[in-house]
Amino acid sequence: MNRPLFDKVTLIGVGLIGSSLARAMHRHGLAGEIAGCARTEESCAHLLELELCDTAHSDPAEAVQDADLVILCVPVSANAALAEAMAPGLKRGAIVSDVGSVKQSVIRDVDPFLPEGVHFIPGHPIAGTEHSGPEAGFAELFENRYVILTPPPGSDEEALEKVAQLWRTCGSTVEIMEPGHHDKVLAITSHLPHLIAYTIVGTAANLEESERREVVKYSASGFRDFTRIAASDPIMWRDVFLNNREAVLEMLQRFNEDITALQRAIRWGEGEMLESRFQQTREIRRGVVELGQAGTFDPREPEKVKKEE
Amino acid sequence: MNRPLFDKVTLIGVGLIGSSLARAMHRHGLAGEIAGCARTEESCAHLLELELCDTAHSDPAEAVQDADLVILCVPVSANAALAEAMAPGLKRGAIVSDVGSVKQSVIRDVDPFLPEGVHFIPGHPIAGTEHSGPEAGFAELFENRYVILTPPPGSDEEALEKVAQLWRTCGSTVEIMEPGHHDKVLAITSHLPHLIAYTIVGTAANLEESERREVVKYSASGFRDFTRIAASDPIMWRDVFLNNREAVLEMLQRFNEDITALQRAIRWGEGEMLESRFQQTREIRRGVVELGQAGTFDPREPEKVKKEE
Ligand SMILES: NC(=O)c1ccc[n+]([C@@H]2O[C@H](COP(=O)([O-])OP(=O)(O)OC[C@H]3O[C@@H](n4cnc5c(N)ncnc54)[C@H](OP(=O)(O)O)[C@@H]3O)[C@@H](O)[C@H]2O)c1
Ligand SMILES: NC(=O)c1ccc[n+]([C@@H]2O[C@H](COP(=O)([O-])OP(=O)(O)OC[C@H]3O[C@@H](n4cnc5c(N)ncnc54)[C@H](OP(=O)(O)O)[C@@H]3O)[C@@H](O)[C@H]2O)c1
Repeated sequence: MNRPLFDKVTLIGVGLIGSSLARAMHRHGLAGEIAGCARTEESCAHLLELELCDTAHSDPAEAVQDADLVILCVPVSANAALAEAMAPGLKRGAIVSDVGSVKQSVIRDVDPFLPEGVHFIPGHPIAGTEHSGPEAGFAELFENRYVILTPPPGSDEEALEKVAQLWRTCGSTVEIMEPGHHDKVLAITSHLPHLIAYTIVGTAANLEESERREVVKYSASGFRDFTRIAASDPIMWRDVFLNNREAVLEMLQRFNEDITALQRAIRWGEGEMLESRFQQTREIRRGVVELGQAGTFDPREPEKVKKEE
Repeated sequence: MNRPLFDKVTLIGVGLIGSSLARAMHRHGLAGEIAGCARTEESCAHLLELELCDTAHSDPAEAVQDADLVILCVPVSANAALAEAMAPGLKRGAIVSDVGSVKQSVIRDVDPFLPEGVHFIPGHPIAGTEHSGPEAGFAELFENRYVILTPPPGSDEEALEKVAQLWRTCGSTVEIMEPGHHDKVLAITSHLPHLIAYTIVGTAANLEESERREVVKYSASGFRDFTRIAASDPIMWRDVFLNNREAVLEMLQRFNEDITALQRAIRWGEGEMLESRFQQTREIRRGVVELGQAGTFDPREPEKVKKEE
């Protein structure tokens, strides 16, 4: 590839996802130039220090100047204000995209601010970790992962194809989806699991001090996986729940019915019912493993247990 | 160490935990001889093939003949019948232990069958994976993990120390606990997390076919961790819930109250409440990581995604 796919790309927000994108674009030569946008001068200086961007700006309109592609990589509630702020700087023909975990709200919040002649191709990489900030990213984050694009009806085909090409070069498989459908699917695969993990870790956090210490100590028996998920960024997740309310509440309702049934089976000692429910879920796991989406988990620790006094 | 800690050890049930113990005992020279007990001739032959035991038996009384230490490594509901069956073969001075995930029920089920002069030291290694059977074990499973021993009042000190020594040599840190307290702590660190993981994966399993395929496909966004936990052995977990009913129902009650509060906050758009709850849980994660109990999770896949048609 002689010429990069985009001459200039601007990342609005360079945290876990934004910095992983910057790293992947560097590695694959996808952008002639990368501009980053952060809220403070301090953050801007940090992005340059980490060599994630060629230029860093705290003014969104300045950051998007001359950009061929602008990607919003901020918590979803921040999108509206940033779209409004950057709009005057967007050039005609520019493509605006994002990586937010909710798609209907992004369309609602961003689309109205975009000038005529700017193409909007919302997206969501199904990839992440519980860490956040620009140090947490890595170039391989998107490899073997799906990226869902939810172009509004009548979107520019060429713009869609270019965004898809970007993600494919980063190692992802691109899927097109209707935004409302995206929000429903993610409510069960991502939003509800996070809500539940936050809840159970919160339940443990409310135990009295001595019990809480034991919960941490003996967490290797299942709990630790929930603590990992519940260590995700509170602002990002607050925004997800506020912006995908309907779908999350609907899935939570179903979950509540199912857990009530299991609760009843435990209370009445219905072993057969428990066993058959627990059997059913193995098939789903098999599907996840077969599709290569299981991740790698090793219960062995890299370091020795720190002995307590 | 010239002489092994035990001349002869019998494992009743050689699955994930039993076979990991056999491997660790081999590695550290802890047993002069290891006998295995399985239900069928086929399983027995398999244990010999895998070189996990020196002898394999389908008759528990025969398996425990001359054993200095007998460890029950079966689903907890199987303990009573096995204790009754093996009792006539136990020698005077033998130590009986177990690895079950519930401790009050094991004491209730096993103790009454043990002859005079046999020492009972129940135990529970806080270590495991979602896999089961003799192939799934590995010698390092117990390294840097806690093992909780719950000796009944008046237990033989020497027997307790020998069992503790066995686990320490396998790399574990041994803790002594009252059995009822163990069952409460594990209800929140292990039993409730498994119940919830089974439930949410079950909720997804009940979606219609096309949605279910999407849940599997996009599982990398949080759901996959739950599928891993929910792939654990159905029989083992049925038995845990049937045998630790009170403590699990009590914790489930608290969890239900907490999730109802979050549900309400989402419904009414109470962002501050959500954010502060999500903030609180990070501290717990920090504790888990600091204690070296976090395990190693890498979202990168070892193999490439199998492309779908
Ligand atoms: N984490 C995941 O697993 C994951 C996966 C898929 C999609 N996503 C989506 O990706 C987006 C970013 O998530 P992330 O994990 O990369 O978060 P992150 O690591 O916290 O990074 C977000 C960045 O946005 C900036 N920012 C935060 N609030 C802002 C505001 N109000 N106005 C302007 N800039 C703001 C911050 O930079 P400064 O503080 O320096 O200004 C920060 O570096 C979210 O929409 C999320 O839904 C996340
Ligand atoms: N898995 C974990 O993460 C974990 C962690 C800590 C403690 N534990 C506890 O460890 C114990 C064993 O769990 P595991 O994970 O090792 O299970 P596993 O891999 O399924 O092994 C259990 C073994 O017990 C035998 N068995 C099953 N039912 C039996 C019965 N009714 N009578 C006699 N033998 C029977 C089976 O052998 P055959 O079919 O060949 O007879 C099987 O190999 C359980 O009490 C569990 O609570 C498990």
